[in-house]
Formats: sequence, C-alpha cells, structure tokens
Amino acid sequence: MPITMNEWKHVFKLDPAKEISDEHLEMICESGTDAVIVGGTDNVTMDGVLDLLVRIRRYSIPCILEISAMEAITPGFDYYFIPMVMNSTEKKWMMDIQHRAIKQYKEWMNWDQILMEGYCILNEDAKAFTHTNSYMPDDEDVTAYAYMAERVFHLPVFYMEYSGKYGDPKLVEQVKRQLNNTLLFYGGGIENDSQAREMNEHADVIVVGNSIYTGIEEAIKTVHAVKDY
Amino acid sequence: MPITMNEWKHVFKLDPAKEISDEHLEMICESGTDAVIVGGTDNVTMDGVLDLLVRIRRYSIPCILEISAMEAITPGFDYYFIPMVMNSTEKKWMMDIQHRAIKQYKEWMNWDQILMEGYCILNEDAKAFTHTNSYMPDDEDVTAYAYMAERVFHLPVFYMEYSGKYGDPKLVEQVKRQLNNTLLFYGGGIENDSQAREMNEHADVIVVGNSIYTGIEEAIKTVHAVKDY
Repeated sequence: MPITMNEWKHVFKLDPAKEISDEHLEMICESGTDAVIVGGTDNVTMDGVLDLLVRIRRYSIPCILEISAMEAITPGFDYYFIPMVMNSTEKKWMMDIQHRAIKQYKEWMNWDQILMEGYCILNEDAKAFTHTNSYMPDDEDVTAYAYMAERVFHLPVFYMEYSGKYGDPKLVEQVKRQLNNTLLFYGGGIENDSQAREMNEHADVIVVGNSIYTGIEEAIKTVHAVKDY
Repeated sequence: MPITMNEWKHVFKLDPAKEISDEHLEMICESGTDAVIVGGTDNVTMDGVLDLLVRIRRYSIPCILEISAMEAITPGFDYYFIPMVMNSTEKKWMMDIQHRAIKQYKEWMNWDQILMEGYCILNEDAKAFTHTNSYMPDDEDVTAYAYMAERVFHLPVFYMEYSGKYGDPKLVEQVKRQLNNTLLFYGGGIENDSQAREMNEHADVIVVGNSIYTGIEEAIKTVHAVKDY
C-alpha cells in the first residue's frame, strides 16, 4: 500500500465515459483532494481512459486507474485498483477475471502499484450491481465481508459502493468496527459537505463521483468539509 | 502462521471416516512427522472427529482439524485449516461457505489458530473434485492460482491436492517458483520414500494420507525420507 494512502480522506472518481471540461477538471485536481480515480462501469474505452490520464497528468495529484475492462488498461497511472466483487453471486467477478488477467500478464505486474479492493455493491439499481449479478446482502453479510477482506484475504481496501445513492451511515460505522488494517472506502450519493462529513466520520476515505457531473461547486466543497474537519 | 510451520516438511492426514487401530495410530504419532491433520471429504461426523482428537491427544504431536463440514467442528485442536477451493467453478466453495461460517461464528474465531488454505484439486476422479464442481486447470492456471494465493490473498498455505493420485513433480516445481511467503503443501499418492523425497524437493510440506490405510510400514518410512534428507 502506498504509505500516504493511510492518510487519505477524500478522493474524486472520474468516469472515462463522461465529458468533463478543462475548467472543471482543474477545479477537481486543484481542490486539495488526495487523489483522482479514473473508473466507470459502462463504455469504458482506452480512448476515454487515455484522454483523462493525459489531462490529469498536467497536475501533481496522484492518479489511479480502477480497472473495469481489460481492454482499457494503460501504463502511466500511479496506482491500479483491481475490484473483486465480494457480494457477486458468481466466482467470475470475485476472482476468475482477475485470475485470467494474472495468468496472462503476471510478468508485467508491479505489485508496488497494484491494490486489490474488496467491493461490496449496495445499490440494487446500480448498473454495476446488475452487471456483476450481485445480491443484496443484509447488514451482517456486509460486516462479514469486511471481516473476510481483512482477516482472510488481507486486502488493502474494502469498498462500500452505493453507486449514486446515499448509503446508511450506521452500517458504515458497523463495518468500520471490523477493520484495523484494511482501509474503508465509501462511495455513493455524496453531494454536499454535511454528507461528506457524516460518511467520513466512519469511512477512512470518501469517494465523490457523480456530483462532479451534477453539481461541481458543491462537489468541490466536500474536500474541505473532510480535510479541515 | 504458527512459527514452527515454516520448518515443517511432513504431515500425516487421517480421515475421520476411516478406522485406524491404536497400534497404527501410535506409529503415526511417534513417527517424527511434524503434525497430524484430521480431514476428509465423505461422512465426516462429529463422532469421527472427536474419536481421533481424543486418541491423538495422548501424544505430543500438533493436531490440526481441516474443516470440511460445519457440523463436525470442535474445540481442542491446535490449529484449524480452512480450505478455499480456487479451481472450483462455484463461488460457494471459494468463499461463500466460509462467509456464512464467519457471519455466524466470528466472535468465537481465534485467528492465531486459523489458517486459510488456497486449494487446487488436481485429480478429476477425486470425490472432492466432483463434490466442489471443480474444473481441471492447465499448468498456467495452477501457477496463476498459486500466484494469487500469495500476491492477492496473502494466504499462508497453497495446497496442491492430487487426492490419492501421484502428481506431476514438474508442475509442483513450477508452482513453488511462484511462492516466497505462502507455504506449498503437496498431497496425493505418496506411498514410498522415493516419491516422498521427489515431491519434497519442491513442496515445503508433503501430506501423506491414503497410504496410512493401505501400507502403514511404507507410509512411516516417508517421514525419515524427507526429515533426514
């Protein structure tokens, strides 16, 4: 794990399938956020990924590719996050795709740059939920997944993904109690600074994504809401 | 991981569904082997497990339960091994059963005693292979599983299970090359000391099971074949 990641509190997630102006991108990269993740579910193409990479690289912010499509991986990022969907009903999304990629590319993989994320997708209406054939876990399922992420798999990150929907802070709090070493990422529906602060009370890192595209001014404010808190 | 496990070379595996005389059990426990594992696939009952536990406890040998059935778990062992079948086609055998167990029992789990094993079942005729809906991986699949066991999941043990059939020493050698921290266990078809030595050249620990029941004298000789080597 990059040493500084233990100190992260806030990241923005940019979707390579969505347009963003240079002006808004500058606001993101100079907001004081800890890192920018490039990642999405639909229509993730190499062109979209490269376009964002080149434009983000004008700034000094750490830049991460969250891998969702094998055909849209490129060198040049600081880190690569590889999701494993723990609440998928299929082994495919938990480890088989990852296994195939490792079988093919392991000679080129640099594990100083790669971090596995134990994902739990908690919004039944999300594209990623359907796409990965996930099931809706109850609260105890979720805390047991977090426990496994740390105790069984020793993953650096456990990611509660509400994907556009604001989640349950009580569950985030319960999950955090399972974790000592694995970092807790929370993503979903954070549109203003009070939501940012509420989720940051328990999650180590909050991820702000959609609101970049729907309300940039408020999105930017979430940075200071948690960094100065 | 128990500190001494790094020094293990040989273990016997006793099947709680099979009969063993006191005389043979004494030969096993006083053979100089590093540990005795209690584990099987079929008809594993609490009675069978408890019977072996009590009888093995007369000796000073470390005693491990390899968990295959939730209804046959008891306190009293030194360690508990939990298999995760990496080449199963179903998530169930890789992590869902384990998730259900953790959900129910995590308050009582002592991780100083629990070790996860990344299993790869390599004998299509084995009961465990069919039972877990495994597929037959090619050599590169197997090395990639070993690589994942160490790099992705940080498992203490990767277990090549040929289950009664003598395996491929070249593949064991290739797999060993993937591993720096994860211990390599080899099990299957070891019936004499030259086989024991051959597999022990690459595997960290060899597991001798079936031949206890088919040729105890030869089975006992496998201990010194690798311990004095």
